[in-house]
Amino acid sequence: MRVATLAIVGVGLIGGSIALAARRRGIAQRIVGVDRNPQAIEQACDNGSLDSGSADLPAAVADGDLVVFCTPVDCIAAQVVETSGHCKPGSLLTDVGSTKARLIDHIEAHVAPEVAFVGSHPLAGSEKQGALHADADLFAGRVVVVTPTPRTRPDALDRTLDFWRALGATARQLSPAQHDEALALTSHLPHLLAATLAGVLPAQWQELTASGFRDTTRLAAGSPALWSGILRMNSGPIVAALDRFDERLRDFRSALARDDIAAIRALLEQGKEMKDRLR
Amino acid sequence: MRVATLAIVGVGLIGGSIALAARRRGIAQRIVGVDRNPQAIEQACDNGSLDSGSADLPAAVADGDLVVFCTPVDCIAAQVVETSGHCKPGSLLTDVGSTKARLIDHIEAHVAPEVAFVGSHPLAGSEKQGALHADADLFAGRVVVVTPTPRTRPDALDRTLDFWRALGATARQLSPAQHDEALALTSHLPHLLAATLAGVLPAQWQELTASGFRDTTRLAAGSPALWSGILRMNSGPIVAALDRFDERLRDFRSALARDDIAAIRALLEQGKEMKDRLR
Repeated sequence: MRVATLAIVGVGLIGGSIALAARRRGIAQRIVGVDRNPQAIEQACDNGSLDSGSADLPAAVADGDLVVFCTPVDCIAAQVVETSGHCKPGSLLTDVGSTKARLIDHIEAHVAPEVAFVGSHPLAGSEKQGALHADADLFAGRVVVVTPTPRTRPDALDRTLDFWRALGATARQLSPAQHDEALALTSHLPHLLAATLAGVLPAQWQELTASGFRDTTRLAAGSPALWSGILRMNSGPIVAALDRFDERLRDFRSALARDDIAAIRALLEQGKEMKDRLR
Repeated sequence: MRVATLAIVGVGLIGGSIALAARRRGIAQRIVGVDRNPQAIEQACDNGSLDSGSADLPAAVADGDLVVFCTPVDCIAAQVVETSGHCKPGSLLTDVGSTKARLIDHIEAHVAPEVAFVGSHPLAGSEKQGALHADADLFAGRVVVVTPTPRTRPDALDRTLDFWRALGATARQLSPAQHDEALALTSHLPHLLAATLAGVLPAQWQELTASGFRDTTRLAAGSPALWSGILRMNSGPIVAALDRFDERLRDFRSALARDDIAAIRALLEQGKEMKDRLR
């Protein structure tokens, strides 16, 4: 996998890490960045990952053979559509958004026909934000879900898969809807539960929390601006995941209320069995 | 705080750590252990924390000036009552059980009148089990809740508070009911949510989990035998905590279903605000 010019739109933690990983692994001849925040560009130029950067989106994408959109998920679709007319014919566009179906539906309906778009979602991240925390190994050994549709051109899909593999990731293919259904349960629902649990803690009980509460609510520290966008973009599958969760939660409540030790233990055993498989 | 003979009933992670911490801090002249498992006794004698140990509960507690019950929470009340007749008159008994009200009600109704019992709950632990993982600093800087009742003798309460402080902990007093209400939300509910979330993960989506799912479900790895006992012993307050959680979860579901971005964001902000205060 070699790219002449790699353009990164949004040089935060993920965009900055893609630039750094591409640099270290020698994937691109030239790497350019776009960000409204001049400090982000400066940091990524300083650590050697960007050759140049600016706030001028149309100009930057015009050079890109591969353009990766790393902006908040509720901005990506409009940005891809708006900038696709400025891109080189034949260029490949992808993104790193945490939700896929709505975004890709919009893009496929409106994107310039001279470019190819293929959705991606790297299952990697950190509570840390910003290009300053960019990590060249952020994707190493992590899964990146690539989400082709019936309209995706096979060569564009292959190049997208190759790109993520070149960054050290394990690439997997799912349809946008399958992706959203799975991630609603594996990522968005945990976030929602963490925020809900943290939100019901009365201030006077803070001192009575230990590592269990802290770990279970870790995700609640995430950015509300970012996560309200993610949750909203995938609300249908999240509500379905929530209902599936709620059904089991009711089983738990009912087992407790009727003091059914066998049922309580069975529910704990089922959770442990799956948890132990994840290690 | 000095104890002539400290007796530890149940030499697992907590019991073994109390013995080791007491040894290192020179709190007891003599430390004896009781465990059905000869290996646990051997490990705790090997690391120098116990002077002697056996499986003979009545004999071991007979010498104790302070007896700490570190057995599973659903065994403690019966053990305290059964062995209190074998204890020295004037000896102090305490425990480390994660739930308090039911246990203490039973103990106060049936314990031998010559001894004093005061309930305790150190908010410290680990996924690691057994005396082999004993840690002399397990209680350092951690909160231990001590739960007096109107029947608790002031001198017994003071000695119990002094004991935990001597092990490096911050001792706090709550009534058994206040303790159970708070811990239902700060400890038992997170466990139940972690087990529920892990339990609804379909096997084919395992690969699509990342650190967020792993942290949110960390507690699901705990022992179902131990935790079914804990949850059952505090089922009333846990159901109440669950209902409080569920009310907010419904608000979240409703905000998602009607695409109310302001409400979604407000719920996330409230969770983050509390989470940030816990750091």
